[in-house]
Amino acid sequence: MTDRRITKVKTGYYRIPLAEILSDAKHGDHTHFELITCTIECADGYAGTGYTYTGGKGGRAIYSLIEDEYKSGLLGQDSSKIRDIWQSMYWDLHYVGRGGLVSFAMSAIDIALWDIHCHRLQQPLHQVLGGASDRTLCYAGGIDLNFHIDKLLSNISGYLEKGFEAVKIKVGKDDYKEDVARVEAVRELIGNQRVFMVDANYSLSESRAIEFGKAISHCNIAWFEEPTMPDEYASYGRIADAIDIPLAMGENLHTQQEFELAVAHSKLGFVQPDASNIGGITGFMQVAELAKLHGLPLCSHGMQELHVSLLASQPHAGYLEVHSFPIDQYTKSPLKLHQGQALAPTNPGIGVEFDPQLITPHLVKSS
Amino acid sequence: MTDRRITKVKTGYYRIPLAEILSDAKHGDHTHFELITCTIECADGYAGTGYTYTGGKGGRAIYSLIEDEYKSGLLGQDSSKIRDIWQSMYWDLHYVGRGGLVSFAMSAIDIALWDIHCHRLQQPLHQVLGGASDRTLCYAGGIDLNFHIDKLLSNISGYLEKGFEAVKIKVGKDDYKEDVARVEAVRELIGNQRVFMVDANYSLSESRAIEFGKAISHCNIAWFEEPTMPDEYASYGRIADAIDIPLAMGENLHTQQEFELAVAHSKLGFVQPDASNIGGITGFMQVAELAKLHGLPLCSHGMQELHVSLLASQPHAGYLEVHSFPIDQYTKSPLKLHQGQALAPTNPGIGVEFDPQLITPHLVKSS
Repeated sequence: MTDRRITKVKTGYYRIPLAEILSDAKHGDHTHFELITCTIECADGYAGTGYTYTGGKGGRAIYSLIEDEYKSGLLGQDSSKIRDIWQSMYWDLHYVGRGGLVSFAMSAIDIALWDIHCHRLQQPLHQVLGGASDRTLCYAGGIDLNFHIDKLLSNISGYLEKGFEAVKIKVGKDDYKEDVARVEAVRELIGNQRVFMVDANYSLSESRAIEFGKAISHCNIAWFEEPTMPDEYASYGRIADAIDIPLAMGENLHTQQEFELAVAHSKLGFVQPDASNIGGITGFMQVAELAKLHGLPLCSHGMQELHVSLLASQPHAGYLEVHSFPIDQYTKSPLKLHQGQALAPTNPGIGVEFDPQLITPHLVKSS
Repeated sequence: MTDRRITKVKTGYYRIPLAEILSDAKHGDHTHFELITCTIECADGYAGTGYTYTGGKGGRAIYSLIEDEYKSGLLGQDSSKIRDIWQSMYWDLHYVGRGGLVSFAMSAIDIALWDIHCHRLQQPLHQVLGGASDRTLCYAGGIDLNFHIDKLLSNISGYLEKGFEAVKIKVGKDDYKEDVARVEAVRELIGNQRVFMVDANYSLSESRAIEFGKAISHCNIAWFEEPTMPDEYASYGRIADAIDIPLAMGENLHTQQEFELAVAHSKLGFVQPDASNIGGITGFMQVAELAKLHGLPLCSHGMQELHVSLLASQPHAGYLEVHSFPIDQYTKSPLKLHQGQALAPTNPGIGVEFDPQLITPHLVKSS
């Protein structure tokens, strides 16, 4: 009987600059993203690394949650009891948690435990989870609201050159007619066959969202993401009733209950959980089951290098977002495309191994 | 024209031991509470202190949010623009926020700004907010689930001796019949006239909550607090339909939208916001307005030394909880009762001034 107890937990906090300032309608300018890694070692010699990320803020609090709150309770636990540990983490910080930053900290730890689990099984993550496929549809998501129209179009052309067959742009300009013009220009550029989504980052009022949704109805939009505040579940339902474009949301829903409310009231066409903020792979798979139950395609937000395996494993996978935060560029196997699809890593583990040479220069603190 | 800009932000993190271990059905044993203070100084010489607290976990992450995320943006801001600052704080950390720990950090800062505001006006908080009264109904809330029945009753007797005319006990024993027996014993002890509430800390299933609610219907219970998971808004509505006891919740709702969902779906009899986790006084007053609109008595959770002023100021005030975390015992003016009511402080400011002699021994770190 091997001893699977956790013997060591190491946390790292990195601030990684973006190549250029990226803006959306509600979070303003992004200059960096934060990466918080959690490496767990076990008595049997197995180890795994999980992680979470932010748009530049809150990462040091996540580091504190792992180091100051969770670490001591993890040491000595059986690392194979992933679901037990998940429940313990949830309840341990419930009073200050129920989503928010606690979900990010839980995610990094949970992903590390799945990495260990896959290494023990000597299988890649998409196989461990059930292995529907080894690849998934994907799209390139720009954080491009501040791009001049010329740059917007050249950026989209760059995505097509890389092999993407689906793209998403940000909307939410002060004058929504400018958004309409940008959407029309992009549709003209990419042609009628490619898949095209828009994302307002909840910057619109309900009436403006409906007005805008009707104004772009001729552009064959695959989904309209986060038109209004993510907490306004019933507002989404009314928008869905009023326009012809399916709605999508998920990156701001950080508990199972929030996804349940969205599925019950928001008349979504797609769900987009993010394993970095929904409680890791355990949390993501709970949302995957909910989506399956309701016939909703499962998509994702951010961290494409991990989500590619999660989506590839699911028969109801929709589109993997290939996000503008290039976390995968700091790993040993950046995301690979083949004929417009993203390929899941085939090596044992979660398939995300950070390259020390690339990330160490950005390390701010570690335990 | 005075210069009201913020010149300094100082944060303190304290761990304060409880006199004895206190337990409830879902958070387990409490040995300490955490106190996070935020003192803000302005160019015109005015200063104020706000604070938040936890049941023992997450406080260092709150400290990080104030020091690492909010502080730099606060310096130079006009301290009188409390609502602007509140909005900025909300959006600045929205992606990792929407409740959770971010609401706690915002609360400490917001309360400090209200303290400054009251000092500038040379008025006590209950007057600044509109001054319906200078006192409020209150009750003593025990964290007493682990108390043997004899100790439970002697603890309640202690509350009566201190002048309380209303009491609340925890329920959620493995065998609910034991809870029924405890409720009956307390009702017999306090007589038929006094007000009596129960609190399950969301430890029950919906069916068990209904069964228990019916089993104590003869005990004249003022409210049944948090029978099931706080996120299960519709479940509360079904329980409310099935039993005769009004429901109450609020301590786990950390955004305005969560309170709106509760008011819309949970058929509550009372709302219980906590200024330490709903975004300070600004957040608490938003909930107060929502409650007024829906004809719901406004109650509170924890931090009685501050909430006494908030409830005293409101015509629809219900009951102030006098919580078992004795924060007020570490201030220069612990809560005072008169004829079963709690008296709002009359000195300028929020009425909560920590006594350095009492709290400094528990300081872990400060800026």
